[in-house]
Amino acid sequence: MDIKDLYEQITELMDKEVELKGWIRNHRKQKELGFIDFYDGTYFKSCQLVYTNALNSFDEIQKLHIGSAIKVIGIVRKSPKEGQEFEIEVKDITLEGECPEDYPIQPKRHTREFLREVAHLRPRTNLFQAVFRVRSVASYAIHKYFQDRGYVYVQTPLLTGNDGEGAGEMFEVTTMDLKNIPKTKDGEVDYSKDFFNKKVGLTVTGQLEAEAFAMAYKKVYTFGPTFRAEVSNTKVHASEFWMIEPEIAFCDIDELMDIEEDMLKYIVKYVLENCKEEMTFLDKFVEKGLIDKLTKLINSKFVRVTHEEVIKLLKEAKVEFEFTPEYGEDIAKEHEKYITEYFDGPVFIKDWPKDIKAFYMKLNEDGKTVRGVDLEVPGAGELMGGSEREADYKKLKQRMDELGMKEEGLEWYLDLRKYGGCTHSGFGMGFERLLIYLTGVENIRDVIPFPRTPGNCEF
Amino acid sequence: MDIKDLYEQITELMDKEVELKGWIRNHRKQKELGFIDFYDGTYFKSCQLVYTNALNSFDEIQKLHIGSAIKVIGIVRKSPKEGQEFEIEVKDITLEGECPEDYPIQPKRHTREFLREVAHLRPRTNLFQAVFRVRSVASYAIHKYFQDRGYVYVQTPLLTGNDGEGAGEMFEVTTMDLKNIPKTKDGEVDYSKDFFNKKVGLTVTGQLEAEAFAMAYKKVYTFGPTFRAEVSNTKVHASEFWMIEPEIAFCDIDELMDIEEDMLKYIVKYVLENCKEEMTFLDKFVEKGLIDKLTKLINSKFVRVTHEEVIKLLKEAKVEFEFTPEYGEDIAKEHEKYITEYFDGPVFIKDWPKDIKAFYMKLNEDGKTVRGVDLEVPGAGELMGGSEREADYKKLKQRMDELGMKEEGLEWYLDLRKYGGCTHSGFGMGFERLLIYLTGVENIRDVIPFPRTPGNCEF
Repeated sequence: MDIKDLYEQITELMDKEVELKGWIRNHRKQKELGFIDFYDGTYFKSCQLVYTNALNSFDEIQKLHIGSAIKVIGIVRKSPKEGQEFEIEVKDITLEGECPEDYPIQPKRHTREFLREVAHLRPRTNLFQAVFRVRSVASYAIHKYFQDRGYVYVQTPLLTGNDGEGAGEMFEVTTMDLKNIPKTKDGEVDYSKDFFNKKVGLTVTGQLEAEAFAMAYKKVYTFGPTFRAEVSNTKVHASEFWMIEPEIAFCDIDELMDIEEDMLKYIVKYVLENCKEEMTFLDKFVEKGLIDKLTKLINSKFVRVTHEEVIKLLKEAKVEFEFTPEYGEDIAKEHEKYITEYFDGPVFIKDWPKDIKAFYMKLNEDGKTVRGVDLEVPGAGELMGGSEREADYKKLKQRMDELGMKEEGLEWYLDLRKYGGCTHSGFGMGFERLLIYLTGVENIRDVIPFPRTPGNCEF
Repeated sequence: MDIKDLYEQITELMDKEVELKGWIRNHRKQKELGFIDFYDGTYFKSCQLVYTNALNSFDEIQKLHIGSAIKVIGIVRKSPKEGQEFEIEVKDITLEGECPEDYPIQPKRHTREFLREVAHLRPRTNLFQAVFRVRSVASYAIHKYFQDRGYVYVQTPLLTGNDGEGAGEMFEVTTMDLKNIPKTKDGEVDYSKDFFNKKVGLTVTGQLEAEAFAMAYKKVYTFGPTFRAEVSNTKVHASEFWMIEPEIAFCDIDELMDIEEDMLKYIVKYVLENCKEEMTFLDKFVEKGLIDKLTKLINSKFVRVTHEEVIKLLKEAKVEFEFTPEYGEDIAKEHEKYITEYFDGPVFIKDWPKDIKAFYMKLNEDGKTVRGVDLEVPGAGELMGGSEREADYKKLKQRMDELGMKEEGLEWYLDLRKYGGCTHSGFGMGFERLLIYLTGVENIRDVIPFPRTPGNCEF
């Protein structure tokens, strides 16, 4: 039986015998009795095992170390302890797997830096039990949201010959012997000798391929890994992370914002409802006010402003910014923060200057701005970035020319505008950014099971 | 409105005006009227638009090409055509995106080889509309199965410093300049200069990392991309594919088989129930008897035999095999086929000779076989491979030594046996193998949105 079943069926199970398998989180020993804090990972709360010296195996049980795997047979009893629904009166405990005293996870506060070094053991701690359960439940909420609404989940490829068009630095993938790279006569790398007979890297986005599927299914989404080879050691950057990229045909930028807002509220609500214990823990020990923050988001109406309006507000602000806000330029973190505080809630900023946005965004009538939209969320910064896509073949081609982009390798992408193209929009959400927001955990390394960052690829 | 809504709410919508957006799949023109086969990808069935020369725009509409994106306003009418529930009496059609006559997707039979060359357009065909919808729904069925049962979804890393221990050839990942690879004094590649300061590749399995999480959550699963750098150009091999790898603590090999059987039946049932139109199409045009085959699987009881019993059966068989079955050796495709036909259903083959199986499988008491289990399914071959894992630190270490495996980089994996190890089991299922089985489509290139195989990395 799982501890989850125990909590869910406690009324029926009271005074019944149960068999449980799990691990010892803590062990307090007294002369005539002992208490084991016992968990099996199926439920956030652990359960207390009580044993007395009436048991023949009392001495054996007293020797059990923290971290050991055990099988327990016992009777469910009402607990005399306040706030504790029940406890297990032990009839027998069998040791399944020993745990020596040098076990790194002891019942005390470990630093998160230390726990990253034992990433294979850290999910056993309360903090990471909560974080990675939330990660799992949030993943499911995302799938459920889109599937319930008829979207098709597209697993876009990770190996790609496209260079991602400036979305970020790429890792190169090869099977050539690095010691003896084949070269052409001109001394260039001879990619015709490589596995794919061409230069291939790890994708930075699945958007372009998702667009092809949106032109067939109307509503699609991706949810998969993405890579960045940038050497940036910040709290919010990882070399490997997961992205959600919905793409919708016959959808303009205003309808896109409706979807973004609806989806985000749905996920937050789903996590609050399905991770009650975990969220209570995170609210108490990681970010005070976390649940209030999330509840406020669900009940808020996201504001929609243009980039120009934002710059105007920033210029009028009675704040000494480190970076001066300028029309036609990107905004800094401090500006994002000011804007979400000014509106006291999430803000969509749209109609960005074309020169600071990607080539595929639809040009506005003014010829200067594009229908891109970023969602700024208080305490999370930029959580999503999306746009209406340029659906006009000529305009898209012209923009690619302006930027000196080669058509080669992107003919198929242009085809989408040639053969029955239509108004369409999509956005990308970094899954770990969302998790940082949902859990209150600040460092991206602590919301990824085995994080990869420059110089770090352990486990 | 989506066409899906139209089909689902047809009674209420009859004789009402609707607005639809989608594409022209076919267009039959007569002198005084015309018929447009119209789809929007939200439902497998298309819907028929009927327009007459009573419309001012009659001439304009007649010029519309196949593949064009259009907006339609019309009245839902009972169709005079047998077997067709309704049709749309057109009031107005607006062209949203033109499609020239060189459009590669014409209303005729295209070869699958040709369609692979236009992988960005092929989801618009009936066949691929069906296949990729099934792919999406099957993905969701997998998540739903595990989430409903309390499993934690773990996104294991794709970038790894482990070499996968013989599971397959790996792609190497680097940010070094291939033209000028840094070398050490000894002429070796100087990986200290690479992004992760070490040699890193694309993972061939998430199992080892999943085991770490099973030791914390009891029940976990992975569902993500996996890579193989083998140069094999078969119908069932791709360089990039998706795998599902559940891992369960306190679970032995018999309980594992229960889970495998239950999960497979669940997915098949879910797809049959939620992709009715698609499965009917695939049954009719791709694999005759497909639905019967799948229904039979749901109602069958999977047989469980040992590898030794299988060899005995094969030796006794009155069949001229190309390869002679031998005790202690692997079995060939022809043998798998014979066995599933012999039992007339899915067969679990367990207790494999240790020398042909992976290092982490639990050694049986005989010292010769391991608790590995393969599931053979009629018409699909080996669909899943799993095992009870070696939970004993010393035995695992000894096996690694026997195989000449280095402990370096796998200390953390050994730790899982040192600190509260327990009986645990898991299996892997290649998602595309499942899809080939579910759809009847034979080639793995036709169940992956943008397939990657040796020499092929387009789009």
